Amino acid sequence: MDNSKIGHHISEQFNKELEDIRNKVLVMGGLVERQIELAIEAYTTGNMELAEQVIKQDNDVDLLEIAIDQECTQILALRQPTAFDLRLLIAVIKIIHEIERVGDKAERIAEMAIQLANSEIRISHHELEHMAQLVKGMMHDALDSFARMTVEDVPAITALDINVDREYDSILRQLITRMMEDPRNITRTLDILWTVRALERIGDHACYICEHLVYMIKGEDVRHLGQEELEKIVKVSR
Amino acid sequence: MDNSKIGHHISEQFNKELEDIRNKVLVMGGLVERQIELAIEAYTTGNMELAEQVIKQDNDVDLLEIAIDQECTQILALRQPTAFDLRLLIAVIKIIHEIERVGDKAERIAEMAIQLANSEIRISHHELEHMAQLVKGMMHDALDSFARMTVEDVPAITALDINVDREYDSILRQLITRMMEDPRNITRTLDILWTVRALERIGDHACYICEHLVYMIKGEDVRHLGQEELEKIVKVSR
Repeated sequence: MDNSKIGHHISEQFNKELEDIRNKVLVMGGLVERQIELAIEAYTTGNMELAEQVIKQDNDVDLLEIAIDQECTQILALRQPTAFDLRLLIAVIKIIHEIERVGDKAERIAEMAIQLANSEIRISHHELEHMAQLVKGMMHDALDSFARMTVEDVPAITALDINVDREYDSILRQLITRMMEDPRNITRTLDILWTVRALERIGDHACYICEHLVYMIKGEDVRHLGQEELEKIVKVSR
Repeated sequence: MDNSKIGHHISEQFNKELEDIRNKVLVMGGLVERQIELAIEAYTTGNMELAEQVIKQDNDVDLLEIAIDQECTQILALRQPTAFDLRLLIAVIKIIHEIERVGDKAERIAEMAIQLANSEIRISHHELEHMAQLVKGMMHDALDSFARMTVEDVPAITALDINVDREYDSILRQLITRMMEDPRNITRTLDILWTVRALERIGDHACYICEHLVYMIKGEDVRHLGQEELEKIVKVSR
């Protein structure tokens, strides 16, 4: 575990507090990664117990966000941090919000799994699973970069979002064709569409986490910049 | 203008800084309210110039978010605020993020206006406009509560979200019926669906702004609580 950035405080207690926050973010992130996994498994296998579990556990994610948020605010009030420490706390508050939103998307997929369980309609799971793997990988790598407190992998992660969008468009086209061919099943097909859209949004949130991480480490706000600009800023040596 | 909460600092300069941030948030909020208005007008009248204007101005909203964010961080670093001032700054950082997301939704509606401009298909504007009025009113009242630094109207605002969801469901059902009856126009009908969905999300963001406001004023995190719990917390006398 690279403590080089966190472990430079004269106060041993302050180090511990920041380390504790970082660990809690990783626990929360791990929980949500698992939520995505279970939701997709519920969706593709029709395992309703898994779907229920995802929906139930969303509460744990919410509570973790509130707890970490509170801890960050307390440290801001008591330690009055500046520079990297301040950016770390601000970035964490934003990052946990993204993670919470990803948890909501996993819950949504689980809900769709339940809706679709009794339906005969199925989309080729191959493509949906591929898209799920892609966004799950982006989330994993974004959280891993946060754990290692490094931005070097950020451009590679955000670059993948184009692939996600491409797969989303491709599946959307298929679903539209299917709706045209079988209008009686439009409601069901829309449920699949919501699932695919939730996956697409998970990719976006992974990119947002990366942006907050760049702000934290580099002190630069890279939101709304293009991929090229982002790469330039990340590459500037520290 | 009620400065009772902001204007209590010994440092005149600090008062000015907080006042400046509050004013910038209101400018940003006003800009986004106008974006929603113009996007809906572009959508219902087919005025493409308006739609282009909304899309172009989204950049101003993004830049305002970045500027206010930076200002908050600077104050956190230099003034090391505690209690209400700290909560104000944290809440502002979160509120401007919600406003920015609402701006994105307005942009999305404007894009759909352009997509649909050359299409013969139209949904009854009556219902869509009613839903638009509803969420625009929620945004307006949420921003107004922020301007007045009061939470008394919050329960009334968040309670409206049920109506928004109900209208969304009703329009969704209509759209599904229309897709079944006229499968050739499914792509166009989906564009209408995205618009209605964007409106529904604006209602959610207005509620989130209210939640951040309650945290700011009352010091209580009311996210993920039900309407009843929220009302209780808001009603407790300060």
